[in-house]
Amino acid sequence: MKRIPVEASRKYDVLVGYGILENAGGYCREVIEPCKALIITDSNVEPLYSDTVTASLLNSGYSVFHYVFTAGERSKNIHTLTAILEFAAENRFTRTDIFVALGGGVTGDIAGLAAALYQRGIRYVQVPTTFLAAIDSSVGGKTAINLIAGKNLAGAFWQPSLVICDCDTFKTLPDSVFADGTAEAIKYGMITELPLFEQFEHGSISRDLDNIVTSCVNIKRRLVSRDEYDRGARQLLNFGHTIGHAIEKLSGYSISHGNAISIGMVMMSRAAEQMSMTREPCSKRLSRALERHGLETECPYKAGELLEAVLGDKKRSGDEITLVIPTRPGKCRLHTVPTGDIERILELGLKRGDE
Amino acid sequence: MKRIPVEASRKYDVLVGYGILENAGGYCREVIEPCKALIITDSNVEPLYSDTVTASLLNSGYSVFHYVFTAGERSKNIHTLTAILEFAAENRFTRTDIFVALGGGVTGDIAGLAAALYQRGIRYVQVPTTFLAAIDSSVGGKTAINLIAGKNLAGAFWQPSLVICDCDTFKTLPDSVFADGTAEAIKYGMITELPLFEQFEHGSISRDLDNIVTSCVNIKRRLVSRDEYDRGARQLLNFGHTIGHAIEKLSGYSISHGNAISIGMVMMSRAAEQMSMTREPCSKRLSRALERHGLETECPYKAGELLEAVLGDKKRSGDEITLVIPTRPGKCRLHTVPTGDIERILELGLKRGDE
Repeated sequence: MKRIPVEASRKYDVLVGYGILENAGGYCREVIEPCKALIITDSNVEPLYSDTVTASLLNSGYSVFHYVFTAGERSKNIHTLTAILEFAAENRFTRTDIFVALGGGVTGDIAGLAAALYQRGIRYVQVPTTFLAAIDSSVGGKTAINLIAGKNLAGAFWQPSLVICDCDTFKTLPDSVFADGTAEAIKYGMITELPLFEQFEHGSISRDLDNIVTSCVNIKRRLVSRDEYDRGARQLLNFGHTIGHAIEKLSGYSISHGNAISIGMVMMSRAAEQMSMTREPCSKRLSRALERHGLETECPYKAGELLEAVLGDKKRSGDEITLVIPTRPGKCRLHTVPTGDIERILELGLKRGDE
Repeated sequence: MKRIPVEASRKYDVLVGYGILENAGGYCREVIEPCKALIITDSNVEPLYSDTVTASLLNSGYSVFHYVFTAGERSKNIHTLTAILEFAAENRFTRTDIFVALGGGVTGDIAGLAAALYQRGIRYVQVPTTFLAAIDSSVGGKTAINLIAGKNLAGAFWQPSLVICDCDTFKTLPDSVFADGTAEAIKYGMITELPLFEQFEHGSISRDLDNIVTSCVNIKRRLVSRDEYDRGARQLLNFGHTIGHAIEKLSGYSISHGNAISIGMVMMSRAAEQMSMTREPCSKRLSRALERHGLETECPYKAGELLEAVLGDKKRSGDEITLVIPTRPGKCRLHTVPTGDIERILELGLKRGDE
């Protein structure tokens, strides 16, 4: 098992290994005295892993409660959040009790926000069970729900007290859900670590998941410790996300996060190349790596449609928007442009350029 | 005009004076560049002060939006919060825009929480228009909404960027609403400042409101700078509040906050005396001072009823609860007891003791 320390406004460890869910309670016990624990999970994950985690927490002296919601991005709303908060209050959870987020990104985001808000903040433990959540949302303390107007528009920065990532749980993921994680992992390689990118271009990944997760979490850890509140370096993690979120929204969330950011990354790379902002071409290598892992790279929407959705995205500040531009595979940088420039960038991103 | 600097995770000034609402925009401009400003206010306050604040913000270069909700504690819920967040998103507010909370405690708490959550946190300005909000909720960054299960159970710590307190606005308050502020001001005197308490015992207050507000804000400022997240000294501000919140809840919020904490403070004082925890008797002086200003001091509920409501209060940590015990007028201290002791304390509080 690997132990990755994160230094943010709260210090905590990310544990990465195989079969470690069975000792979840023991790991919790190292940092949190026995108390009431509310396991928050969805209808897909509950039958798979809730019993294992519950048994381990009980063995370690915690009393365990469960809140299960209907699986899916559509549950990531104010109603589910409210129901969790009321459930905790009815069961008299106090400031010294904990929430345990058991599941993917939707579960982690909503359980984390519930923890941030309940009695103005209680501790929580992230137990990601998807490749995507393991390398992305479970680390770094960004929590959120979607509003009708857009994705992740209401949330808080609230760091977990522990992250327990059991890579065995990825084995139960449908291919399409696993691919969501692959898209983010390729992103980590693109923004800052060429060897990681190359592993997705040419190598095998299925037997090396713990090392890949560790590489990604290490990159995220460094960016979060430099810029917890996402005003600078951490924004590199948004590569492909401004366009990706617009695509998700336009599709009514029928296009997965992985496919959406995959398309977004390729579009940004194509636009950057055509604006001569790259030092070496990368859109072709990037799209081939993504397609090799079953990800979409062509956008089904027009520039005008994307523009409207982008302008509602929260990454905009006033009349400017900060984009992540690839310089070459393994290196990206931040670039702030007037919102008036976005439409042209989208148009360039939709052209296949020199491919 | 007085300017009181607060040093918390964000540094900001509290401005206290008469007639200063007319320059609200100018004061904002000192700390926040012109941007979109969403004035959040209720149906009582909107006709009184919205035009003045709007004109001043427009004059200073802000573009102004309005969200008005139905006045009353019952609006302090997840639905109003959600509606504000969706309104801001529909109008494309970004991370560099601001909210302006114009009104009493309900408005400040809900607008503050909306600011804490919108795009994971934007800046906001508190413009309290009640005596209570001026000395209590507008300073210190505690934001919240009520859940069905209880008052202020969901919230965040999120400091404002500026507080503009125009004491002229108190002139439009009904006596009963003004008395809510008086109860809190007497609390400040009781916990730490005898001369302030004595002013309410014997003196006149109506012509000295700016100085009283300044005294109270100074006390709160000191406690918040020592203990922003309410784990220690700041809890002194809860004097009378654990019982007070229980009374509010049992009454379905028909008993005002001022009357509820007034009763709560007297009950805690009586209980402390009977447990020989006071150095000099204070319940009689306290109840006379409160009654002199039109506040209730007798509890309409039984110990058993109160107990149930107290155990759902968020000030409880696990099996213990921290109470604020008066030593003498002008001095209180924190005292943590097992929850099993609460019923006896409530029973003692309901006895009139040595009065």
